[in-house]
Amino acid sequence: MNKIKVIFMRHGESEWNQSNQFTGWQDVLLSKKGIQEAQIAGKLLKKNGFFFDYAYTSMLSRAIYTLWYILKILKETWIPIKKSWQLNERHYGALEGLNKKKIRSIYSKEQIQLWRRSFLHTPPALDIKDTRYPGYDRRYITLNKNELPVSESLENTYNRVIPYWKNVILPTIKDKKKIIVVAHGNSLRALIKYLNNINNDNIINLNISTGAPIVYEFSDTLCPLNYYYLK
Amino acid sequence: MNKIKVIFMRHGESEWNQSNQFTGWQDVLLSKKGIQEAQIAGKLLKKNGFFFDYAYTSMLSRAIYTLWYILKILKETWIPIKKSWQLNERHYGALEGLNKKKIRSIYSKEQIQLWRRSFLHTPPALDIKDTRYPGYDRRYITLNKNELPVSESLENTYNRVIPYWKNVILPTIKDKKKIIVVAHGNSLRALIKYLNNINNDNIINLNISTGAPIVYEFSDTLCPLNYYYLK
Repeated sequence: MNKIKVIFMRHGESEWNQSNQFTGWQDVLLSKKGIQEAQIAGKLLKKNGFFFDYAYTSMLSRAIYTLWYILKILKETWIPIKKSWQLNERHYGALEGLNKKKIRSIYSKEQIQLWRRSFLHTPPALDIKDTRYPGYDRRYITLNKNELPVSESLENTYNRVIPYWKNVILPTIKDKKKIIVVAHGNSLRALIKYLNNINNDNIINLNISTGAPIVYEFSDTLCPLNYYYLK
Repeated sequence: MNKIKVIFMRHGESEWNQSNQFTGWQDVLLSKKGIQEAQIAGKLLKKNGFFFDYAYTSMLSRAIYTLWYILKILKETWIPIKKSWQLNERHYGALEGLNKKKIRSIYSKEQIQLWRRSFLHTPPALDIKDTRYPGYDRRYITLNKNELPVSESLENTYNRVIPYWKNVILPTIKDKKKIIVVAHGNSLRALIKYLNNINNDNIINLNISTGAPIVYEFSDTLCPLNYYYLK
């Protein structure tokens, strides 16, 4: 049986990972460490003989830049790159931009943990008059009001990531293309929950490292088998 | 009448522009000066209020990198980028990689000028066993043998650029998208020859500067009007 290998990767460390702020759909840049992580990931993929025909990423700079750094090292900047809001980070609602430590003086540790890692809990919503509302960002102009989030649980994120996986990414793999998906902590948690059939209780324990390529192996009939961090 | 403005740009200076080698389809990187040119172009576009919905470029790194530097400055890395071999530089045949000065000891100045600037003259062809033949490059795997050049006159380049302009780029402009095309000296000469109806004799005098945004203005019915370098 020939295994099919797909690379999933969370972007390198961002400026707000570093300053410990909730990020979500806010468009922040990679930190210096994040750029290094992306370049190291590119070298690791190269050393392991990976090459790509097609790349998927989100509409957010930290993921796009991470992908670009990788493709520069692989000398594959010419491959098609499809950028989609469906792969964006989970929307963190009114928490976006706030410092994670400072929030602890307002909300309990347990509440914050539920917002960050549970499947069903949704952070406080943004007001649509808030300048952080994605309806004011030109990149989301094609989204209708129901698609524009004011806050998302991991379940909400799952409900946009999984149809995108099934309808857009999976057909490309079926078409024998070698692909890489550079996305975010929670869009990748949603995807791995689906592929590994992780229940709502256990998903709380899954965290994805920044800037580390994950090899996801599928059978030749595209059944999910297992995954591991590339070394 | 509302004029429609489209940006055309030749990539920033490449390493082989600097070392005075024929480049064509060889995939060389930007020089330091080329990176600076791209960044200056991005700032100039920003200062003049340009923004984009869609970008076209070639399959060659020097054009892709130039576009990426521009989009970083405009904070528009999220727009779709379509990369196509049809916008590649003209294929320089067996001259690719050779030093322009050294070639003068073999061929007359007049002959070289005809190869470089005329419409109909084709440089000496590559042998398809030559490692420089694009058939060995994975990025051109979808091209059939008739499409894979062994050498091109400007006319040959014109014959791939203009159908691409009509069938792919123009419909995007008709769809009210603001676009930028980052390409090459000769793919842009071919395009401007077509748009400005320049005859075969006069095209020899048209040269395109590296890294300098050209504003091409069209009428609201998409008739070509005029063009100028952005200042």
